[in-house]
Amino acid sequence: MGSSFGTLFRISTFGESHGIGVGVVIDGCPARLPLDVSEIQAELDRRRPGQSKITTQRKESDTAEILSGVQDGLTLGTPISILVRNADHRSRDYDEMQSKYRPSHADFAYDQKYGIRAWSGGGRASARETIGRVAAGAIAKKILATFGVEVIAYVETIQNLRATIDPNTVTQAAVEANIVRCPDSAQAEVMITLIEKVRKDGNSIGGVIGAVARGVPAGWGEPVFDKLEADLARAMLSLPACKGFEIGGGFGMTERLGTEVNDPFMADENGQVTTSSNFSGGIQGGISNGMPITLRLAFKPTATVMHEQPTVTTEHENTTLQGRGRHDPCVLPRAVPMVEAMFALTLVDHALRQRAQRLI
Amino acid sequence: MGSSFGTLFRISTFGESHGIGVGVVIDGCPARLPLDVSEIQAELDRRRPGQSKITTQRKESDTAEILSGVQDGLTLGTPISILVRNADHRSRDYDEMQSKYRPSHADFAYDQKYGIRAWSGGGRASARETIGRVAAGAIAKKILATFGVEVIAYVETIQNLRATIDPNTVTQAAVEANIVRCPDSAQAEVMITLIEKVRKDGNSIGGVIGAVARGVPAGWGEPVFDKLEADLARAMLSLPACKGFEIGGGFGMTERLGTEVNDPFMADENGQVTTSSNFSGGIQGGISNGMPITLRLAFKPTATVMHEQPTVTTEHENTTLQGRGRHDPCVLPRAVPMVEAMFALTLVDHALRQRAQRLI
Amino acid sequence: MGSSFGTLFRISTFGESHGIGVGVVIDGCPARLPLDVSEIQAELDRRRPGQSKITTQRKESDTAEILSGVQDGLTLGTPISILVRNADHRSRDYDEMQSKYRPSHADFAYDQKYGIRAWSGGGRASARETIGRVAAGAIAKKILATFGVEVIAYVETIQNLRATIDPNTVTQAAVEANIVRCPDSAQAEVMITLIEKVRKDGNSIGGVIGAVARGVPAGWGEPVFDKLEADLARAMLSLPACKGFEIGGGFGMTERLGTEVNDPFMADENGQVTTSSNFSGGIQGGISNGMPITLRLAFKPTATVMHEQPTVTTEHENTTLQGRGRHDPCVLPRAVPMVEAMFALTLVDHALRQRAQRLI
Amino acid sequence: MGSSFGTLFRISTFGESHGIGVGVVIDGCPARLPLDVSEIQAELDRRRPGQSKITTQRKESDTAEILSGVQDGLTLGTPISILVRNADHRSRDYDEMQSKYRPSHADFAYDQKYGIRAWSGGGRASARETIGRVAAGAIAKKILATFGVEVIAYVETIQNLRATIDPNTVTQAAVEANIVRCPDSAQAEVMITLIEKVRKDGNSIGGVIGAVARGVPAGWGEPVFDKLEADLARAMLSLPACKGFEIGGGFGMTERLGTEVNDPFMADENGQVTTSSNFSGGIQGGISNGMPITLRLAFKPTATVMHEQPTVTTEHENTTLQGRGRHDPCVLPRAVPMVEAMFALTLVDHALRQRAQRLI
Repeated sequence: MGSSFGTLFRISTFGESHGIGVGVVIDGCPARLPLDVSEIQAELDRRRPGQSKITTQRKESDTAEILSGVQDGLTLGTPISILVRNADHRSRDYDEMQSKYRPSHADFAYDQKYGIRAWSGGGRASARETIGRVAAGAIAKKILATFGVEVIAYVETIQNLRATIDPNTVTQAAVEANIVRCPDSAQAEVMITLIEKVRKDGNSIGGVIGAVARGVPAGWGEPVFDKLEADLARAMLSLPACKGFEIGGGFGMTERLGTEVNDPFMADENGQVTTSSNFSGGIQGGISNGMPITLRLAFKPTATVMHEQPTVTTEHENTTLQGRGRHDPCVLPRAVPMVEAMFALTLVDHALRQRAQRLI
Repeated sequence: MGSSFGTLFRISTFGESHGIGVGVVIDGCPARLPLDVSEIQAELDRRRPGQSKITTQRKESDTAEILSGVQDGLTLGTPISILVRNADHRSRDYDEMQSKYRPSHADFAYDQKYGIRAWSGGGRASARETIGRVAAGAIAKKILATFGVEVIAYVETIQNLRATIDPNTVTQAAVEANIVRCPDSAQAEVMITLIEKVRKDGNSIGGVIGAVARGVPAGWGEPVFDKLEADLARAMLSLPACKGFEIGGGFGMTERLGTEVNDPFMADENGQVTTSSNFSGGIQGGISNGMPITLRLAFKPTATVMHEQPTVTTEHENTTLQGRGRHDPCVLPRAVPMVEAMFALTLVDHALRQRAQRLI
Repeated sequence: MGSSFGTLFRISTFGESHGIGVGVVIDGCPARLPLDVSEIQAELDRRRPGQSKITTQRKESDTAEILSGVQDGLTLGTPISILVRNADHRSRDYDEMQSKYRPSHADFAYDQKYGIRAWSGGGRASARETIGRVAAGAIAKKILATFGVEVIAYVETIQNLRATIDPNTVTQAAVEANIVRCPDSAQAEVMITLIEKVRKDGNSIGGVIGAVARGVPAGWGEPVFDKLEADLARAMLSLPACKGFEIGGGFGMTERLGTEVNDPFMADENGQVTTSSNFSGGIQGGISNGMPITLRLAFKPTATVMHEQPTVTTEHENTTLQGRGRHDPCVLPRAVPMVEAMFALTLVDHALRQRAQRLI
Repeated sequence: MGSSFGTLFRISTFGESHGIGVGVVIDGCPARLPLDVSEIQAELDRRRPGQSKITTQRKESDTAEILSGVQDGLTLGTPISILVRNADHRSRDYDEMQSKYRPSHADFAYDQKYGIRAWSGGGRASARETIGRVAAGAIAKKILATFGVEVIAYVETIQNLRATIDPNTVTQAAVEANIVRCPDSAQAEVMITLIEKVRKDGNSIGGVIGAVARGVPAGWGEPVFDKLEADLARAMLSLPACKGFEIGGGFGMTERLGTEVNDPFMADENGQVTTSSNFSGGIQGGISNGMPITLRLAFKPTATVMHEQPTVTTEHENTTLQGRGRHDPCVLPRAVPMVEAMFALTLVDHALRQRAQRLI
C-alpha cells in the first residue's frame, strides 16, 4: 500500500528493479490531450543511467510502451498505462546482497516490514521505480503548459560547490546545457570534475536541487492538510535519497526578523498584485499567490560506495560488505527530471482540484 | 477540500478563528481505548495563547467538549468529535483587515481562491485551526503508548541561538521545564530574553523545532509515495509558519561523503540490529528501521508585526497597513505541541496500516 | 472508519443516538453559495420523529446549529460543520438492551466488531445518524439546483399496496401533500390506514421508495468502479433498513429480451438526443445520458416490534425480549428525505468530479 | 478517474477492449502469499469468451503475465501488476460503430463525457475490462481462504426459468458442472436450450445471479457509509449489465411484517451465536454477523442484438443500426466469475480494515 499519488490526477507505479518491468497507471488524465510516446521517452532519456560519464555506467534503454488510454495520438480520459521492460540484470555483483544488508539502503527495513525482499537490485526501493513517475510527469507537464505553467529543476550545489542561479529567469536550455544539469556553466565544470574524482575514489556525494514553477495562478492548494507546500514536501520526500525540503526562504528565515522576511504586496497600474520579495516561495496559507514557487531539496550521497563497510547478515550477525560493480557517484543530475516530475504531478492535481470547486 | 489527514486514523478539522468554534472529527480510533476529556485538555493547554509572558497575551480558555465516540471513559470505535467554542473576538483591531491584505498572511491567497474570506482573525488560516489537531494528537499519543512509542518535540534554535540537545535522551519534563520549551535550560533563559526584546520592538522571530520519536518498531511506512518521511514532511509543512523539513542528517548530509554518512548496521548478542550512527533519521527506503526518528523543522517569524508595512487593498490599490493590538512575537513555544500532534497522528496512522497488511 | 462519503464534496457524520449530539462536517462545498440555517432545518423537519401519527411518537426538535464554514449567509469554501444536540433520552425502555441483543438490530454485530457498544438507543446504528446526511443533503440540493437538477423521492409501495407514479412528472408538492409521502393521493390514504393498523398491532411493515433525478446533464459518472449507478447503490444501501436497489428496469429486465429493453436513441430537430424508452434509468456505462435517473429501493420492516421475540443475552445465553415503548411502524415516510439526501450527495460529488476533468 | 477499488487491498484496472492490452495493478496485497500465475489463469479461463456454445464465439486466450510484485512464487508486499495482451480485433464488424451510437451501449455517454471514445469494441466499457478484476479476485480468494472464507456465485434464473439452490450448501463443483453455471442441473439443461434458441434469433436474455460468502466472521464492515452491504452493492453495480442488487430478503421483505422477517438469535451449548433465519443476509448494521452473506444480482439482456434498431449518428441525426458478427446471447455464465471476483475483493478489503483497528 502506498504506491499511488494524487487525488484527481492519480498515478500508481509498479515494478521491481530486476523484475519483468516497471511502469505506471495514470487515472484522471483529461481526455483529448495530444500525446505521443516520444514525449514520454524524452523525459525518460533524461533520467536513464549511462547518459554521461558522471552517472552510473549501466546501460539501459528504458523504452516506454503505452498500453492503454491513448488512441490516434489523443488521450481517451481513461487510465493511461505505461510499461518499461527491464533488461536482464541479474549479475553476480548483487549476489552478496541476498545475505547481507547494505548500509543506509532499504534492505533491512523491507525485510522487517514484509518478511521478504526483492534482494536483487534493490527491488522496489531502487531509483528505477521513478521511471513511472517521470513518464507520468511528462504528461503532467503537458497539461500544465495549457495553464501557462512551466516547471524547471536544476542542480544548485554539489557538496560545498554552490552555483549562482536566479529562479525567476533560469531556462530549461541552460539546465540541459551540461551533464551535471547546473545552469551556472562555470560552476558546472568544477562540479563535473569533483564528481569524477569522487567516482574514482569509489565514494559518493550529494547536493541540493533547486526547483521553480513559474506561471502558477493564484488559488491552487487546499487548506489545511493539503496545502500546496505540504503536498510538495510529501512529493519530494518520497524520492529516493531526498532528506530535506525548503520552500521560499526556508531554514534561512529562522535567523531573520519578521520585518525582514514579510513579502509586501504591491499593485501595478492594471491592478495586478505581486510581492516585492518572495520569501513565501509563492505560497501563502497553503495557496499559491501567483509568484514563482521556489523549492530547495537536499539529496544525500548515494548509499552505494566501493568501500568495505561494517554491516550485519540477514541472520543478524556482524560482518562486512565490500561494494562492487558500477555505482552512481552522484544522483543529482538524474534526480533533476525526477524532481520536475513530482513537482508537475503535484501541481496538475491541484489545478484539477481547484477547477472542480469553483461554482460557475 | 483538504481538511482531512490520515488513511486509517483519519481526522477532519473544522472551524474559523472568529466563528462559533473549532474542532475535529476523528474516524478510525480503535475501540475500548480509555479516554478522558482531561487528557485532551492537557494538550490544548500547552498550545493555548496567553500561557506565558512570551506568547500572545490573548486570553482563551479553549475548553474541549467531546460530542461523540466515547462512553463511560472508553472509546466506542465510532467517530470522536471534539468541539472548542470560540470566545467573542470581534475586536476593532481587526477591522482594517477587511479592506487590506496583511503581508505574508493568507488573506490575499484565500480571496483569490475562494472569492470570499473570513477576514476577522485569519479565519481558517489562523493557528487556532490547530486546536483540532492537538486534540486528536492527544488521542494518537495514547495509542502510540500502547506500542511503546514516545514523541517529543522541543525548541532547538531561536533566531541564531542554538541549544544543545540529545534527541536520544531528551525528556518531556525537560521540555516543559521552561516557557520557551527548550530543554537546554541555560540557553532557554537567553532565548526568553531575546523573545521579550523582540516583542517590545513589535517584531517577530522564528527558529527551528526538533522532534524525535523513540520506540518506533521497524516496519512502519508505505513505499513508495507514503514513505514515512514523506507523510511526516506533509504533516509538518501543513502547520502554519513551517517552511522547512529535515530528517536525520538533512541538508547537512549534502556536504559530506557517502562513506561519512552511511549508517553501519550492527547486531548485539541477542541479534538485535541497530545502526552505529543515525544519519538516516530512523527511516530507510520510507520504512522505519527501529532507530529514533529525528526531524528538524524551520518556523519562520510570525507575519504579524506592529510596524507599518506596504501592501494593497482588496481593490488592488497600493496602501500601507499598521499592525495593532496583541501579537505573538515567536510561535515556537506553542508550536511544540502542534509538532508533536502531527508527528503522533502520522505515526499512529502508519501503525494501523502496517498492522492491516501482515497475514496471520 | 467508514463515516465519510464523497470524493470532492465529502461529508463525515458523527454522533450516537443518545450521546451529546449528532452532526456532520462537509468538506469541499464551493464558496459563495448562499446558505441559511433555515434551509437545513426545513429538510431536518421532514425526517424528524413525531411529525405525524404514522411515525414514531418520540418528540425531538432536532435543531441545527452551523458551527463553521458560513459567514454572513455565504459559504466560505471551508468545512461546514453542523451540530444537532440530542435531548436526554436515557429512558427505562432501553435498559434491557444493555444485556440482550435485539433481533435484526445491529447490537450483536457492533459488539462483535468493537468489543463495546453504545447500547442505549442504538448508538451509531440508530436512524438518528442520518441527521447529518439530511443536513448535508440540503446543501447538495442547493448546488444541484445551480445545474438545473432536481431530486425527488416518494413512497411507491407499502407492503403490497402499490401506487401509480410517473417519475417524469412527479412533483415535490405532490409528495409532501400527505403524511406518507406517496404522490398517489388515493393510494396514500389506504397506506396510512394500513400503517395505523400495523402500529396498533405492535408490528412493522416496509415498502419501496422510488426516486428520480431530472435535469442531470449527460457526462456524470466515472467508469469503471465509480460508475454513477455503483455510487448510488452504495449510497442507498448505506441507509438503515435498505435491502435492495434497482436502477431503470432493474430486476424486471431479467425476464425480457434484449430487443424489448434496449433504449433507442432519437434526435429532435435541434440535434438534442434522447431515448424513446428509459430502461437504462438514465445511466449507460456508468455515465449519465441526460435522461431521468430512476431508482427503486427496498426498505424492510423496522426491526423494533412490540412483541416478545427469542434472542440471546450478551453472555450468549438464550432468552426472550419484549419490545416496549414507542416504535416506528413504518420507516418509509421519514426515509424519503434520507433517500433524497443520499441521491443529491452522490450527484453533486460527480458534478464536481466531472467539472475537474474537462480541459479548457 | 474511477478505475480503482478498495481501501487497503486496492486494485486499479486499465486497458481498452481493442487496444494493446488490459490489466490490473494490485496495491496492498500482504507479503509472503504463495502465488502462481496458473491460479490467476484458471479464473480468467472461467470468464473468457468462446468457452462454450452458449457464450460469444470470439476466441481469445487471455493469457496473464505477472509483471511485478511476485518473486519465486511468493508475493513481495509490493504492487502486483498483471497484463493480458489483446489479440488484434479490429474487424469490419465494428466500423459502423464509429459513426453510430449502439442503443443501450455506453458509446453516446462516453462521447458526451470525454468528447472522444474508443469506438472499436466498446473500449473501456467492454466486459473485457473485467479481466483485471477477475485476475485480482483470484488473489483475493486466496487471502480469504486463509480466513476460512469461501465465495460462490451461480446462475439462479435465466429469463423466467428459476433454479432451486440452497446457498448454505451449494458447491463450486456443482456450479462448474455445466456450461451455464447453474447448480440445479435439471434446470440448467432447460436454460441452455433457451439460450441457444435466443442466440439463433439474434436476440439476448438476462437473469439473476445469486452469490454467497460462507465463513465470514462477525465484525467485518465499516459503519456508516462503508457498510459491508453498501460496498458490496457498489462492487456489483460496477459490473457491466448489472441493474439490481438485493441482500438477504431483499425486495421480498417489503411485503412482509417485521415479526416475519426479524432474525431471532440463538446460542448453542458452546455459546456460539447464530440466527434461526437469515433475512438479514449475514449483515446487520453494516457489519457481518457470522451468518452466510447472500446476494442476488439482476443482469439485463446484453445490449448487442443482431436486429436492426433505430438510433442516431454521432452527428445527432436519426438512423438505424443493424447488428452484425458474433454476439453474446446471455452474459450470465461468464458473469459468475466476475461476481465472485467483486465479492472477494470487497471482503478482503474489509478483512484488512477490520484487522487494522483492533487494539492488541
